[in-house]
Amino acid sequence: MGGRVPLGIGDDAALVRVAKGHELILTADLSIEGVHFLQGLHPARSVGHRALARALSDVAAMGGKARFALISLALSRTAPRRWVEGFYEGVRMLARQTGVAIIGGDTARLRGKMMVDVVVAGEVPNGAAVLRSGALPGDHVFVSGRLGLSAWGLRLLKKSSGATGTAASPAIHAHLFPQPRLELGQFLGAKRLATSLIDLSDGLSTDLARLCTSSGVGVRLLAANIPGPEITVRGVSRARQLDLSLNGGEDYELLFTVRPAKAHQIPGRFKGIPLRHIGEIRGSKRLELILPDGKTRPLTVGGYDHFRK
Amino acid sequence: MGGRVPLGIGDDAALVRVAKGHELILTADLSIEGVHFLQGLHPARSVGHRALARALSDVAAMGGKARFALISLALSRTAPRRWVEGFYEGVRMLARQTGVAIIGGDTARLRGKMMVDVVVAGEVPNGAAVLRSGALPGDHVFVSGRLGLSAWGLRLLKKSSGATGTAASPAIHAHLFPQPRLELGQFLGAKRLATSLIDLSDGLSTDLARLCTSSGVGVRLLAANIPGPEITVRGVSRARQLDLSLNGGEDYELLFTVRPAKAHQIPGRFKGIPLRHIGEIRGSKRLELILPDGKTRPLTVGGYDHFRK
Repeated sequence: MGGRVPLGIGDDAALVRVAKGHELILTADLSIEGVHFLQGLHPARSVGHRALARALSDVAAMGGKARFALISLALSRTAPRRWVEGFYEGVRMLARQTGVAIIGGDTARLRGKMMVDVVVAGEVPNGAAVLRSGALPGDHVFVSGRLGLSAWGLRLLKKSSGATGTAASPAIHAHLFPQPRLELGQFLGAKRLATSLIDLSDGLSTDLARLCTSSGVGVRLLAANIPGPEITVRGVSRARQLDLSLNGGEDYELLFTVRPAKAHQIPGRFKGIPLRHIGEIRGSKRLELILPDGKTRPLTVGGYDHFRK
Repeated sequence: MGGRVPLGIGDDAALVRVAKGHELILTADLSIEGVHFLQGLHPARSVGHRALARALSDVAAMGGKARFALISLALSRTAPRRWVEGFYEGVRMLARQTGVAIIGGDTARLRGKMMVDVVVAGEVPNGAAVLRSGALPGDHVFVSGRLGLSAWGLRLLKKSSGATGTAASPAIHAHLFPQPRLELGQFLGAKRLATSLIDLSDGLSTDLARLCTSSGVGVRLLAANIPGPEITVRGVSRARQLDLSLNGGEDYELLFTVRPAKAHQIPGRFKGIPLRHIGEIRGSKRLELILPDGKTRPLTVGGYDHFRK
């Protein structure tokens, strides 16, 4: 980090510099055993990776650059040393990959469920942050990546009860090691391309509804355009795949809106990640889904129950 | 906070500004049920106050001004609404009193022990932060307030098993609602009076040893000068009071070192808080305690077992 970290872990607090002309982004995310991760299903390295990824994704969703992280870990008294090492390895690998310095945190041992709180500090040029609240009627709605992949990966993991070898599946990999879209967020913010931006942590239906509520608008979502998990397994219907795309959570892709006059500036791919046009923002506050057969139905906010489905 | 908080809770992350020419201080502190607080002993308002105070004290110990806080709360499923309201009331009251804006966090419900993680962001003029590592041989050692009061308050609380009315005791109040010494820290930093600074969270013996280790020095501590809890209860010996002062934790007073030529600039009181000269830094790495009778013994690092003594 060069001269950017005058002081790291070891004093009463960490001391860092924010770049001139930049605002500071701060976000906190809890990851709790039994709620956000399951022992026996999520390897320690994945627990660390996912905990950091959740917070990084919030910074991506502001169009910011992630700079610093504080990791607070409440460890079960029985957690073996190897687990703790694996956890921090997962954190460190993603931190290195995204240019984030781990500058502090806290640790404690407790009886009971483990818990992680990750705080990430990022920065964004003054005024360049992209909020949830800027979507305007007529805006085109875009999404990155494939949706429902993480939820499908979780399903596969549960079936195989965490057996080794299955990590070869792209869906399982997407679930265990989601990639926050930091560079895409910065691109959208720096080029002033997006009027609004949110990350998909709880599923497209839930997070799109949040964006519409914040912006005071509605949406027409084109089911045929939504990039699905592309499951080739026999017996998984198109309707099931659409359900995964709409209601499966933890994809950590970005959902954003763009003025019609600028929509042509959105590339088909950004650094290998497909960007798809999936609908239009409308002045009326209705949330509608246009099915592949042309029929319209209200968009039901499915939410995401993590491990309850 | 005026124009300092462009965006608070409600978007993907919080967006804030750090003052020009300032560095950012970041600190995280976990508070866990059964480790840092006890149900039935600590009222909800005290749990909230103490959780925030711990993190604020870290900012005070850098000579910084606290600006923003993120409160992540993992609540037991059975926690009544009144408890949660009391908790946030405790947080908010201390935040208001210290000029801190609550700008985010996370909440979750879980089976098991409750946990809070508080992250505080503060700021300090470039280069003005006071570290643990700057103590020099010959420096005078100072401490604020009275030491051992919080530990004695905890003892009283346990005896009365949380009975009401006891909050009238200054010791109990010191335990339930400790005051982070933010203004004192800023005064020492801004006037460049302290060569090193640490807050007393785990007890004088432990935290003084930490400061000496960080600075690569030793100390001669004068027992007769240490401001004790001043317990007037019969049967509490001077030795017991000294033990509380040395090894009782959670006083959140400041311990700092000052060049001999500047020692006269340290007032006897700062905004009503007594400041006492309690020893000298030495080049040899020995930690020595001079007893009131003039005898010297090694300073034993007692640590602080929170609720285990």
